[in-house]
Amino acid sequence: MSCGAAPRIVMKFGGTSVSNLDRIRKVAQTVKRQVEVGCEVAVVVSAMSGVTNQLVEYCQTLNPLFDSCEYDSIVATGEQVTSGLLAIALQTMGIKARSWAGWQVPILTDDAHGKARINQIDASALIRCMKEGIVPVVAGFQGVDHCNRVSTLGRGGSDTSAVALAASLKATRCDIYTDVDGIYTTDPRIVKKAKRIKAIAYEEMLELASVGAKVLQTRSVELAMKEQVRVQVLSSFEDHDSSKEECLPGSLVVSEDEIVEKEQVTGIAYSLNEAKIVVKGIPDLPGIASSIFAPLAEANINVDMIVQSSGTNQTTDMTFTVPKTDLLRAKDILEKAQNIIKFNQLITDENVVKISVVGIGMRSHTGVANIMFKTLAERSINVQVISTSEIKVSVIVAAEYVELAVRALHTAYGLDKMND
Amino acid sequence: MSCGAAPRIVMKFGGTSVSNLDRIRKVAQTVKRQVEVGCEVAVVVSAMSGVTNQLVEYCQTLNPLFDSCEYDSIVATGEQVTSGLLAIALQTMGIKARSWAGWQVPILTDDAHGKARINQIDASALIRCMKEGIVPVVAGFQGVDHCNRVSTLGRGGSDTSAVALAASLKATRCDIYTDVDGIYTTDPRIVKKAKRIKAIAYEEMLELASVGAKVLQTRSVELAMKEQVRVQVLSSFEDHDSSKEECLPGSLVVSEDEIVEKEQVTGIAYSLNEAKIVVKGIPDLPGIASSIFAPLAEANINVDMIVQSSGTNQTTDMTFTVPKTDLLRAKDILEKAQNIIKFNQLITDENVVKISVVGIGMRSHTGVANIMFKTLAERSINVQVISTSEIKVSVIVAAEYVELAVRALHTAYGLDKMND
Repeated sequence: MSCGAAPRIVMKFGGTSVSNLDRIRKVAQTVKRQVEVGCEVAVVVSAMSGVTNQLVEYCQTLNPLFDSCEYDSIVATGEQVTSGLLAIALQTMGIKARSWAGWQVPILTDDAHGKARINQIDASALIRCMKEGIVPVVAGFQGVDHCNRVSTLGRGGSDTSAVALAASLKATRCDIYTDVDGIYTTDPRIVKKAKRIKAIAYEEMLELASVGAKVLQTRSVELAMKEQVRVQVLSSFEDHDSSKEECLPGSLVVSEDEIVEKEQVTGIAYSLNEAKIVVKGIPDLPGIASSIFAPLAEANINVDMIVQSSGTNQTTDMTFTVPKTDLLRAKDILEKAQNIIKFNQLITDENVVKISVVGIGMRSHTGVANIMFKTLAERSINVQVISTSEIKVSVIVAAEYVELAVRALHTAYGLDKMND
Repeated sequence: MSCGAAPRIVMKFGGTSVSNLDRIRKVAQTVKRQVEVGCEVAVVVSAMSGVTNQLVEYCQTLNPLFDSCEYDSIVATGEQVTSGLLAIALQTMGIKARSWAGWQVPILTDDAHGKARINQIDASALIRCMKEGIVPVVAGFQGVDHCNRVSTLGRGGSDTSAVALAASLKATRCDIYTDVDGIYTTDPRIVKKAKRIKAIAYEEMLELASVGAKVLQTRSVELAMKEQVRVQVLSSFEDHDSSKEECLPGSLVVSEDEIVEKEQVTGIAYSLNEAKIVVKGIPDLPGIASSIFAPLAEANINVDMIVQSSGTNQTTDMTFTVPKTDLLRAKDILEKAQNIIKFNQLITDENVVKISVVGIGMRSHTGVANIMFKTLAERSINVQVISTSEIKVSVIVAAEYVELAVRALHTAYGLDKMND
């Protein structure tokens, strides 16, 4: 596609897109095509796939409680290598290019090593570079703190690097090249008729990301929303025809008002990483919720989907979900607090799935939740917990129903036929 | 050993010494011992062996004429990883440590990327680090140029990093830990009776390095001589008893006046990387040498061991050596200049070895060269070319005699019994 009036784009390539020299050459071709249609391009790269894992393993083997400053300095080298190699590959194809490590840009972060946040990007050197017709190839995932030490942004952080860079460069668009060709209405491994979503709102993407569609790092979507960066997700393994603007490949993540046709439901996500806890027979007194959730919060356990229901004899039941990995800890904490909570029974269930339907159209359409309950009831799927937000309805059902439920909902919301 | 009154040392570990996590732990133990006897220690590390080669191969595969700026940024990551890992290993043993990349120190170099020279080291941050009881672990082989781009010092450059750092830190000593336990009187693979040299002068080491004893990068020895840094070469695979100062392990490279017992000959080196060229029957006129050597110099061919001898009928013969890898180029250049040089015949010979005896004692002892000629003559080894310097005598003989000649000379100069 051409870049329009202000043709400046950021192109980001993930680890599988640069996993070997052949793929790095293919990425260089993709960048070259954008340069040749007149775009001003900045590139962000991840480490070659496998490299970061190897470096992390070195650190963990030496000391499971490694110094996160040293960890950052070690793992950030992966992206430094890729940025240099891609610069060489571009130069070899006649495109002027140079690599930039995070500290060279500089991309300034806080000092929360291992999961740092970008405070500021001084893009002036990069802009000078681009004005000279040189493609900057920026090492993703990294920055530098106020003490001049290398920091990293957490796994998937190169997405955030790219979006932040697009914001500082005031880029027309941030293209995230990955190993899938876009964001789908649901998991294509479960639903063959899943369709690529042409345009999705930031809020929808955030809801989908948080419930399992791991195409973009959540923080990168939050940042894109805050900075109003248009993000396009597309595959680095397909050749995109750059001559047709009207037929954008991949999926565009944009602000709600850019989306003309607001579907009731944009996508259906599921998560098998949740476990259900039911605390039964609690005295129905003020402050009882706090007696349950305060100790869990103290232990940094993320509680989701809280539902309170009346029991018998002035008691109440509290149902909620926690990440599966935290279930044993949560159970232990609650049992130790039995003398305060005074529950009769504690039931836990790992065999559950959280299914969510997401769509900004819910704001103006009514009855979205009802379609969900009706569809599940028709398949005799028992809904155990319900929670809703402005643009999302989530339910907990038994894990064995995951495929059946997702497929039935996909059909019920008309997504099988979308975009056809 | 203890460190004496001003206990500040630089310890440098090469690639085989840090080739895996176990060896990195062993290096950490070695550093820890020095810290525990009260030394103020700064460490310099190479990349894990094999890593640099892999990165160089990536660059060469993408483009044999790669951009050396990008090359530097890519290959410098190897040392960055090792410095972080060693810092973690030290911390794990209770020793405070932190890694320093070249640009963090900073180690400022010129912009001759791929073979940069250190212009200046601002050691103030490192000194503050050491004063706080933290061991700085500096990535060797690298620096940063005036444009804030990463530079590297050429293969073996970590030795130079260590010596330069020792000079800026005004260190008592620079310890180079490697895979051999010192500098030997000759190659122990040829002469079983080769002995470790306890102390060797910079000048001797330079002569030995340039003729084949590749323990230290030549530039590091030049720098040590210029800055008067005492260098100790020792093995990282042996445990050194740190309690006995009188029995220093390894070999000490120091200034001539520190060496009490000046041997006539300190060591015997050989090089199979030379080729001989004889230009025969040249008109014996002024300027004829220049007509031969000017075009070779222009082509950056390093000419060594020039000997001129009278031929017959007002002609002269010129014999000299060039690196074997440049022989074909040199021959081609001379043949093209035949109409200027007007030689009768051009003879080249690759089957030669350069054998050198080196010793600062030659300055005060006479007859050193004569022992060499007599010893070789007794074995019927024909000397083809001779060249001498103040502390070195070199000869060219047929390559087949290399072991015989080196062994005979080792015995003749009394080196078999040295240090016994």
